[in-house]
Amino acid sequence: MREVGIVGIGQTPVSEHWGRSLRDLAGEAVHGALRDAGRPEVGALYVGNMLAGQLTGQENVATVVADAAGLLPIEAIKIEAACAAGGAAIRAAYLAVASGAHDYVVAVGIEKMTDHLNDAVGGALATAADADYEAAHGVSFVALNALLMRRYMHEYGVTREDFAPFSINSHHNAARNPHAMFRSEIDVDDYMSSPVVADPIGILDSAGICDGAAALVLCPMDDAGRSPAPPVRIAGSSCATDTVGLSERDNPLRWQAVAVSARAAYEQAGVGPDDIDVFELHDAFTIVSALSLEASGFAEPGEGIQWAHPDAIGRRGRLPISTMGGLKGRGHPIGASGVYQAVEAVQQLRGTAGEMQVPDARTVMTQSVGGSGSVAVTHILQI
Amino acid sequence: MREVGIVGIGQTPVSEHWGRSLRDLAGEAVHGALRDAGRPEVGALYVGNMLAGQLTGQENVATVVADAAGLLPIEAIKIEAACAAGGAAIRAAYLAVASGAHDYVVAVGIEKMTDHLNDAVGGALATAADADYEAAHGVSFVALNALLMRRYMHEYGVTREDFAPFSINSHHNAARNPHAMFRSEIDVDDYMSSPVVADPIGILDSAGICDGAAALVLCPMDDAGRSPAPPVRIAGSSCATDTVGLSERDNPLRWQAVAVSARAAYEQAGVGPDDIDVFELHDAFTIVSALSLEASGFAEPGEGIQWAHPDAIGRRGRLPISTMGGLKGRGHPIGASGVYQAVEAVQQLRGTAGEMQVPDARTVMTQSVGGSGSVAVTHILQI
Repeated sequence: MREVGIVGIGQTPVSEHWGRSLRDLAGEAVHGALRDAGRPEVGALYVGNMLAGQLTGQENVATVVADAAGLLPIEAIKIEAACAAGGAAIRAAYLAVASGAHDYVVAVGIEKMTDHLNDAVGGALATAADADYEAAHGVSFVALNALLMRRYMHEYGVTREDFAPFSINSHHNAARNPHAMFRSEIDVDDYMSSPVVADPIGILDSAGICDGAAALVLCPMDDAGRSPAPPVRIAGSSCATDTVGLSERDNPLRWQAVAVSARAAYEQAGVGPDDIDVFELHDAFTIVSALSLEASGFAEPGEGIQWAHPDAIGRRGRLPISTMGGLKGRGHPIGASGVYQAVEAVQQLRGTAGEMQVPDARTVMTQSVGGSGSVAVTHILQI
Repeated sequence: MREVGIVGIGQTPVSEHWGRSLRDLAGEAVHGALRDAGRPEVGALYVGNMLAGQLTGQENVATVVADAAGLLPIEAIKIEAACAAGGAAIRAAYLAVASGAHDYVVAVGIEKMTDHLNDAVGGALATAADADYEAAHGVSFVALNALLMRRYMHEYGVTREDFAPFSINSHHNAARNPHAMFRSEIDVDDYMSSPVVADPIGILDSAGICDGAAALVLCPMDDAGRSPAPPVRIAGSSCATDTVGLSERDNPLRWQAVAVSARAAYEQAGVGPDDIDVFELHDAFTIVSALSLEASGFAEPGEGIQWAHPDAIGRRGRLPISTMGGLKGRGHPIGASGVYQAVEAVQQLRGTAGEMQVPDARTVMTQSVGGSGSVAVTHILQI
């Protein structure tokens, strides 16, 4: 396999882009990434997207984006893995370059959610759950995560308030990221008094509905020196799965897909949890932060919640997470989130993360999770 | 790049499988392919599917299929490229093996369409067209192809009847394929009197709505000798795109995506149109057969229709097409069709195509087209 690097990044602000189309947003992100990479000739485009078929009435979305970006007639494929679609698109792009089939490729994540009523979006998101055995009974995606959070609180004797620092950290960091959607800091009172979505999950436990697009340019490390910015090496890349239905798992609080994909990425990169300087995890809900830290080897089962403290996860903590706001603060445009994570990881590694720069970041892990832990894509990036 | 071969094939009959779920059909196809390959350990699963999110309420479908096939926790990703999703899933599997990331992988195509009213299916299929500039005006996917057929008839002075042999050939061949859906032979009177769907397209110009799943096992050619059946080499693999909207093209009768992908596949395989023994083309509509033959280098513009004759495209013709019935006769379960084509190509190359065996088939081309020629995936298979 050829070694693969990231030489270009682009992103739109995450927001309610009511006046802009899917092709417009994705095109902006791709153009930004190509400009950043020094405008190389591109051979393929991999588009992470989950909801365009249901919400925008647009499948065949990779071809639409290739056209919008002026890249026809290149190879263009849509990649879907529920909320992990962005990470999976990066993985597809990585394999295309690693194989030798293409030299320069683009991975772009795009989601357009805010043109629709919340009920429609909630219904579309529930297609990440098991249609036959979960969604058929009317359970929403938030409700499934609420079951996990309630179980965690019961099993390990923790309270809802114990999760607050995850959300506070994300908002603190988002306030310093010009591309973030929720740029207001919050405190524990805000968190505790936020309206309940599905008990015990409140608004401030949950990533909001939003629009956005983010893009990367990948190429062989051997060619990466031709681009203006310092290349970031993809040292580890892995995807793994678990049952879609929560009820089919031996223990729904042990996230097998995350654990297997993290282990494989560590192994490929030749590192372990102690070597990770920044972890861009999938904080779609605060409970996901705790479970991801555990499954990724940073904490024993039941102890992920102990990371919920600024000394642990803040910019100068032991393991900064969600440094540009994460899914909670920057926003979670579903199929784009995994690509936003990688864009932000590259910013950290280049030293261009501005006020949220983590000093001496050399190894960053990004992790995109789909369904309630049913699919996970982990990347380890190094400079 | 490592050389990649196909060592296992599996398929369900194409039919109206009202009593069977998506996971059930896909699981059967995957199990069949794994059994055929001698039950190797598999590293990844690529699922071609277009409509499950809209029709079944199931995204995250690759994880569902990995579970149904007993393959958790392997990598599993859904690939979507409208009606070319099946071909694109094979391409993703090919790149995963070629790169060295995985040794044995499965590509499976699955579509479940018949549980829904025709209007719902028609609306879902229209998401392969341009949502902003085509579908928004109410045009259906059949209507777009009808515009192409009408234009072809006008431009080249041919009649609807001239297209009949494409459909007659597909039905003739399907009648001899136990997995085909439309196993009744038709004649030119049946064709001419078939009800109009969107003038000039009649029922017998169009592939029907159906359910089905087909699967392949791929591995490095270096390992292929371990499997029981003779391995089939993937000599060429390519994907290319064109505008989604027909109105944006200089000439809607020149299919750029097909032309570019066919050319790249020929080049990689070191062959040309004259070397192709069998062409499994994307005969979703009879007009697509003519346009695909032209764009793939078998005929000049306007002359693809001259292939519409048993001496040209029949089993003993110059270039047998749709040998197991094609999309028209075997059926066109959207995201599965590209994989069915490859399964049938392997049958031809192994010499196990039964009554429809093409003598001395050594090089078979398969081609999966999405949208109205907006994305095409071409593979060249050899034994």
